[in-house]
Amino acid sequence: MLILPLACGRSNGDDDVTIKILYCGICHTDLHIIKNEWRNAVYPIVPGHEIVGLVTETGRNVTKFKAGDRAAVGCLVGSCRCCDSCDRSLENYCPKLVLTYNSLDADGTVTYGGYSDWIVVNEHFVVKFPENLAMDKGAPLLCAGITVYSPMKNFGLDGPGKHLGVVGLGGLGHVAVKFGKAFGMKVTVISSTLKKKEEAIERLGADAFIISSDAGQMQAAMGTMDGIIDTVSGKHDVVPLISLLKTQGTIIMVGALEHPLELPVFPLITRGKILAGSGIGGMKETQEMIDFAAKHNITADIELIGADYVNEAIERLEKADVRYRFVIDVGNTLTAV
Amino acid sequence: MLILPLACGRSNGDDDVTIKILYCGICHTDLHIIKNEWRNAVYPIVPGHEIVGLVTETGRNVTKFKAGDRAAVGCLVGSCRCCDSCDRSLENYCPKLVLTYNSLDADGTVTYGGYSDWIVVNEHFVVKFPENLAMDKGAPLLCAGITVYSPMKNFGLDGPGKHLGVVGLGGLGHVAVKFGKAFGMKVTVISSTLKKKEEAIERLGADAFIISSDAGQMQAAMGTMDGIIDTVSGKHDVVPLISLLKTQGTIIMVGALEHPLELPVFPLITRGKILAGSGIGGMKETQEMIDFAAKHNITADIELIGADYVNEAIERLEKADVRYRFVIDVGNTLTAV
Repeated sequence: MLILPLACGRSNGDDDVTIKILYCGICHTDLHIIKNEWRNAVYPIVPGHEIVGLVTETGRNVTKFKAGDRAAVGCLVGSCRCCDSCDRSLENYCPKLVLTYNSLDADGTVTYGGYSDWIVVNEHFVVKFPENLAMDKGAPLLCAGITVYSPMKNFGLDGPGKHLGVVGLGGLGHVAVKFGKAFGMKVTVISSTLKKKEEAIERLGADAFIISSDAGQMQAAMGTMDGIIDTVSGKHDVVPLISLLKTQGTIIMVGALEHPLELPVFPLITRGKILAGSGIGGMKETQEMIDFAAKHNITADIELIGADYVNEAIERLEKADVRYRFVIDVGNTLTAV
Repeated sequence: MLILPLACGRSNGDDDVTIKILYCGICHTDLHIIKNEWRNAVYPIVPGHEIVGLVTETGRNVTKFKAGDRAAVGCLVGSCRCCDSCDRSLENYCPKLVLTYNSLDADGTVTYGGYSDWIVVNEHFVVKFPENLAMDKGAPLLCAGITVYSPMKNFGLDGPGKHLGVVGLGGLGHVAVKFGKAFGMKVTVISSTLKKKEEAIERLGADAFIISSDAGQMQAAMGTMDGIIDTVSGKHDVVPLISLLKTQGTIIMVGALEHPLELPVFPLITRGKILAGSGIGGMKETQEMIDFAAKHNITADIELIGADYVNEAIERLEKADVRYRFVIDVGNTLTAV
């Protein structure tokens, strides 16, 4: 059972920002970590890496923030700052990456995340949260948003005339549809069941919907997509998805699949296709993403819950019973636990 | 058994070039097709898609060639010329691609390749063969050369400061080393055995050599390569190779693996890495490749054989007993069969 803590973590250092947490999204990763499915849990765990709040204190070297500013923290709170990845603003790929929770910090302590009332983070890893973006609905963008935005930018899936496939309509997928439409692309959702068709098209604005088990629909869409964001973390066959790609198209895996893919090479070679992995994004790109979201009014579809509902929410998340993200109303409810 | 034919194929059409074949390389693909390993053989087969010779006749619409010109033909002799791939000069990825042999041509006939005395090809699929490039040693570039050159260009592995890994030192691999060095890159050969180390470094000019089974050498090279060209077609584990890549590095599969890869997604996601397939190249790029090879004096290391030696050569090729390419001296020996 989860019990949400008060006041864990370090005191504010010279380069740090202290944030009073107001909202924190519940990501599927939280579930994996809590249940030690990746066998790296260091208990006690304070999950949460979709954090939005207000700055309460800043260290003397801090230049980007002042008390009262809106601020957000995503999946990472530290990196070496001097490797090739860090030099390229890809701190997310730094070998010495410090994750927001359940991760060893440079000082040897374990990091604690956003299911808490405050957090202290080096300002480099804090994002300025736009004034005109809803803090609760915006919180999930810090993980789900950047995870889909970054590969879209990296693989040129960010402009009119392109056709994007989105596999899986959950926390990541529904945000991918919104970013895809904001970039001006044609967006097709590929799902295993028909039940999300209406909301994919009518509510999220997707242009088309394909049921992956329908051979006729899949055949009709063959070779039509410039890129596919595959958000599904359960075992599934990627070969039929690869067939949807145009020549030199890219399928980007962002779901943390437990089982290895079975991947024949021929379907890649015969049309020069690409399979890529992508994990969250760097700090510069995260700021760019959240500013883009504010400009285009992109937020996640959420169910706002109180801190006392977290255990039930986790259970419902396990059954995929949420559209599409739980966000904890930390500011108004945590003290009441 | 192979018996080399004389004078098969169509007569010269308005857009065609007739080439008297002087040299033709023996590619590993020829072996797969002859033995019907890909279950698509249409006997009788005339293999050969690394063809160099002299133009003897040109159709009235032909503008690029005249009788007496050096000319070359690679893996493809036709495509639809109007699809998205063709529009992007990627005829090699056209769904209606016509391969040089064992392929259905637009007129319904089966194509015949370069183990023959002449060939008739639409001029669009004929490359101008540079005057200063050896015709025998240059022949393998039409398949082996473009197969490695194209992904190097496509993935930015074509300039100083980059580090290229080449997996497998056969027909494709040894040419990849030469192109890599001509581009000014650091080139490391990754091989399963030590026996090719000396020639990789001293003869081909590679900068380093790693034995893939040596954990220490592999560990030392982790995260150092911008890209890897994997030429091995036998079953092998790509995960250790992926670990050699830098953040966002690409491993390009050019070997026609029979068995699916077992590919965990985590090693791709955690550093944003990419696995791509690549198959030969388009006509524009093939011309560019052969001109680049002539400028930088890049040829294949070959064993020149007479037409009467083809059956033995195929047997030796099956045992990987060739450094690195057999080339048939068609012009001087075929009539004697």
